[in-house]
Amino acid sequence: MEYKFSDRVLTLKPSAIREIFKYAADPSVVSLSAGNPSPEAFPVKEIAEISARIFAERPIDALQYSFTEGYPALRETIAQYMKERHNVGREFDGVLITSGAQQVMDLLTKSLCNEGDVVICEAPSFIGSLNTFRSYRARLRGVPMDPDGMNIDELERALKEEPRARFIYTIPNFQNPSGITMSWEKRQAMYALAKKYGVLILEDNPYGDLRFSGEHVPPVKSLDEDGLVVYCGSFSKVVSPGMRVGYAIAPQELLQKMVVCKQGEDVHTNIWSQMICQELMTKYDFDAHLDRLRAIYREKSAFTMKLLDEHLVPHGVTYLPIEGGLFLWCTLPDGVDMPAFCKEAVLRKVCVVPGNAFLTDENEPCQSFRINYSTPTNEQLEKGIRILGELAAEVCR
Amino acid sequence: MEYKFSDRVLTLKPSAIREIFKYAADPSVVSLSAGNPSPEAFPVKEIAEISARIFAERPIDALQYSFTEGYPALRETIAQYMKERHNVGREFDGVLITSGAQQVMDLLTKSLCNEGDVVICEAPSFIGSLNTFRSYRARLRGVPMDPDGMNIDELERALKEEPRARFIYTIPNFQNPSGITMSWEKRQAMYALAKKYGVLILEDNPYGDLRFSGEHVPPVKSLDEDGLVVYCGSFSKVVSPGMRVGYAIAPQELLQKMVVCKQGEDVHTNIWSQMICQELMTKYDFDAHLDRLRAIYREKSAFTMKLLDEHLVPHGVTYLPIEGGLFLWCTLPDGVDMPAFCKEAVLRKVCVVPGNAFLTDENEPCQSFRINYSTPTNEQLEKGIRILGELAAEVCR
Repeated sequence: MEYKFSDRVLTLKPSAIREIFKYAADPSVVSLSAGNPSPEAFPVKEIAEISARIFAERPIDALQYSFTEGYPALRETIAQYMKERHNVGREFDGVLITSGAQQVMDLLTKSLCNEGDVVICEAPSFIGSLNTFRSYRARLRGVPMDPDGMNIDELERALKEEPRARFIYTIPNFQNPSGITMSWEKRQAMYALAKKYGVLILEDNPYGDLRFSGEHVPPVKSLDEDGLVVYCGSFSKVVSPGMRVGYAIAPQELLQKMVVCKQGEDVHTNIWSQMICQELMTKYDFDAHLDRLRAIYREKSAFTMKLLDEHLVPHGVTYLPIEGGLFLWCTLPDGVDMPAFCKEAVLRKVCVVPGNAFLTDENEPCQSFRINYSTPTNEQLEKGIRILGELAAEVCR
Repeated sequence: MEYKFSDRVLTLKPSAIREIFKYAADPSVVSLSAGNPSPEAFPVKEIAEISARIFAERPIDALQYSFTEGYPALRETIAQYMKERHNVGREFDGVLITSGAQQVMDLLTKSLCNEGDVVICEAPSFIGSLNTFRSYRARLRGVPMDPDGMNIDELERALKEEPRARFIYTIPNFQNPSGITMSWEKRQAMYALAKKYGVLILEDNPYGDLRFSGEHVPPVKSLDEDGLVVYCGSFSKVVSPGMRVGYAIAPQELLQKMVVCKQGEDVHTNIWSQMICQELMTKYDFDAHLDRLRAIYREKSAFTMKLLDEHLVPHGVTYLPIEGGLFLWCTLPDGVDMPAFCKEAVLRKVCVVPGNAFLTDENEPCQSFRINYSTPTNEQLEKGIRILGELAAEVCR
């Protein structure tokens, strides 16, 4: 049988990043290419306790069919928490629980974009989201990043030039891959532009709770009096990614369409995992848990930045110091061939992700690569960055 | 803000069935409209045990990110089980774990159908799947059902008339909503037609293990030497729907495209639930568990059919006796207004699903309604069917 695929999957090509991941499966290779939470970060004891209680006290609730919108108690808990802590959510907003935050990207694109409509993205941005937008044949328009977030002049130019722009996709805190946090001024400016041009904002905030230094910046959604912002949260980095629980806070009118789409995709999100998140937030000291995570990542990131200072900076490699999140963005000096550097690193058994994987067009020139510090052990970080340093010493002159 | 939605969600209208569900939420209403497994059917003790063991012995495996393709041990277990028991799976096939079987419908349609492509469906068929096909703007072509499955002449006519047909959607065992099982002869004939016209078959089999009487009929996929059939299985009816675990067995070339789509939808399926299913199938007596379910449903369906014989049949209402599955399909005598019957039943506090909800065009005439017997208690069944009988006595003359 010769299969004939839809146009949308024909345009989805396997990413360069996947080639790298193949090598990372070799246990002798130091992988700095993943984005997993640190194994120390999981609240295992609490999850085991809650699980046992659920199956003792109300097993059918956790095992039977449930609502597409999500477990009502969790929706309420999130609504209250986000309103109190972050001034997120107005009268017109609701909460939808999704199977991981990735599903918010999917459902919103499905609800809004016809083929050829445009999503305005930070350049670089998270490859998983870009691929989701592409899977609905949306066209991506990249806007370059400054050290304090999207370049606002370029954003306005993009909005002017793209009448089919449907939403602006931003990861405002500790962006993946760049680690950049958008300033409060830029958040306000972005909101004003979205309003002026009648384009929505998709605010993706998986790392916001992982700030381990510096000043908290309020979400773009806290500005939203006009129903312009879809806020996307996730339990993947603060509880467990294997559970697949994310959520959207957005105007009900938008959520209703997303609910119809979700019904057709997976009916509803795993209920056990929604109950776990709900009890962790209400019956345990969730703030203390987050503080514990922040301490882990503060220490581990400081250790990693020290290694970068020691092994890579002397050879002209620069990086943006981070105040949270899981990633460091390193840039090779001009004239050094970045893809060749990453390939040679793999041969020396260290995996990093070439930065062009995060661009709207992978063929654009790029001098950067992404490092993850949360998944490897300190020993692996030491070994991996030492090897990268040796390589930099050879190729950066 | 005035929202502008994509064409695909504009065409997805809230179904008539949803109106019915609103009433079913009232606890004084007897709902015969859901399709949930019986609460007695859940293996609660086993799930509690496995869960406790997972969190004691290998918590990080259950909580960390995992593979889009699914938990490797579960994929292997399913491949082996389906090969040994049902001769399903050839060299060219693979297994993909999904977030409920619904996701198989979604990923296959996404991978195969451009807007305007055609899906050939049984008429009536499962509304959830029909809506998924519609969400990719596929056009539905219904083929009428005989008591032993799709009418094969009409299927061939549809294949001749629809050059854009991409797959035939069938629920061969205890079909939702009709309860019909396709005969072995028709399965062979359908396969031969699919081959002749170069059109795939999507075989959806959520109820196959719930046969409580009569002779087992092998899956269409057991015939597949040509890579023509996508087999879709589910743990929802035999373990737990709240867990959201389903799977596809299909040619690798198709699965690869579905995996790329799944990556963008939810990255991977909840890992805890995949581990539960795997251990239930390998470390427990899964056959004994299935036998226990069959006994529950055998007894409960016999009880229900007896009630129908007593209260509805005397007034000219017919139904198809079932040998498995969760649904009974009742047909009112000609001349009786079916939608009015269902509406009046709701006012008398009994919910059933009007049969036209399962048609490719809800406006087509239909004399049938669907009853679910697995969710209500025996007491509720008695009360609900008695009320339906009183109503039938009034309107069927």
